[in-house]
Amino acid sequence: MTFNRIEQFVARSIGRWRSQRSAHHLAFAHFEAVRSNIEIEALSADDPRVVELCQNNKTDLEGIAAPFFMSWSGESDWDDDDDDPETLSGSTVLVPVPDPNDISRGQLLRDRGYAETVAAIGDYQISEDGIFTLLTSYDRAAAAEKIWFETPNLRFRISTIRTSSGKGVTTASFSSEIRLG
Amino acid sequence: MTFNRIEQFVARSIGRWRSQRSAHHLAFAHFEAVRSNIEIEALSADDPRVVELCQNNKTDLEGIAAPFFMSWSGESDWDDDDDDPETLSGSTVLVPVPDPNDISRGQLLRDRGYAETVAAIGDYQISEDGIFTLLTSYDRAAAAEKIWFETPNLRFRISTIRTSSGKGVTTASFSSEIRLG
Repeated sequence: MTFNRIEQFVARSIGRWRSQRSAHHLAFAHFEAVRSNIEIEALSADDPRVVELCQNNKTDLEGIAAPFFMSWSGESDWDDDDDDPETLSGSTVLVPVPDPNDISRGQLLRDRGYAETVAAIGDYQISEDGIFTLLTSYDRAAAAEKIWFETPNLRFRISTIRTSSGKGVTTASFSSEIRLG
Repeated sequence: MTFNRIEQFVARSIGRWRSQRSAHHLAFAHFEAVRSNIEIEALSADDPRVVELCQNNKTDLEGIAAPFFMSWSGESDWDDDDDDPETLSGSTVLVPVPDPNDISRGQLLRDRGYAETVAAIGDYQISEDGIFTLLTSYDRAAAAEKIWFETPNLRFRISTIRTSSGKGVTTASFSSEIRLG
């Protein structure tokens, strides 16, 4: 069985996850540790948030698949000198738009990005063995993510932030996400 | 160009690397940070360490490819209560034995393992896009590693330690390794 359809990938992702994320800031060999809870919920295609995001991107609602909503709340140890860890929280609406000629790839619309808090369009591809790869270009940087299921209840995510030229990787991060009951 | 030969993978790995490794101990959501330097050196097939390892494994020297030596020295923050980080160092001789019928896979002999400090035989496979996967079974655990080159000078490594039944992942770790000049 192959897992290269976005509908399968989203279906496996729905739920609540406890995440540990480690970011490596490569230039100065700094470690950042983030603990968070993530919730991923399916949205219907006629949800107002989905409709609005499609309108903003001039995207036909007929062409979308498996829209979803992701929210997170966590704490980072980034500021080592501070006893209060930085609180991180946010949410985003995500709408996949599969390529009509190749179901294993497409675009992913977001009302805000991870690397920068602005709307973004990424290009995704899903390999035969279920590895979801997403590339998103911003003004000053490019983000690449690989997400896969190590088991049905353990999701791994590798993210890299590159300079916009695509040459230098400035940050690499790894998340392990365990499904909550 | 494909990169599914072990000789190519070893050739790209030769050198000195500065590594940041984050381990996620999943059951109790603990983070461990390790900074280390890693050196990977090519060995000749008639190096006494290679010959001895092959003899111990009853492996014909004719069938081996690209043997190498890896050494590392680093510090872990595992014991948070201690001002002195734990020092980690070691070295291992590694000898690939490609499958004569499929150059993209084979066995990897080691005079000691990562997960347990005993000799080990792992099974490797290299995908068309150059991802090296290694599975090693020990008495009480199984280790899986994926290693790939994000750029020629940036190597990523994901490791998981599973219970020997293969079901539960107890530890997931991520290394980013930058080539030193």
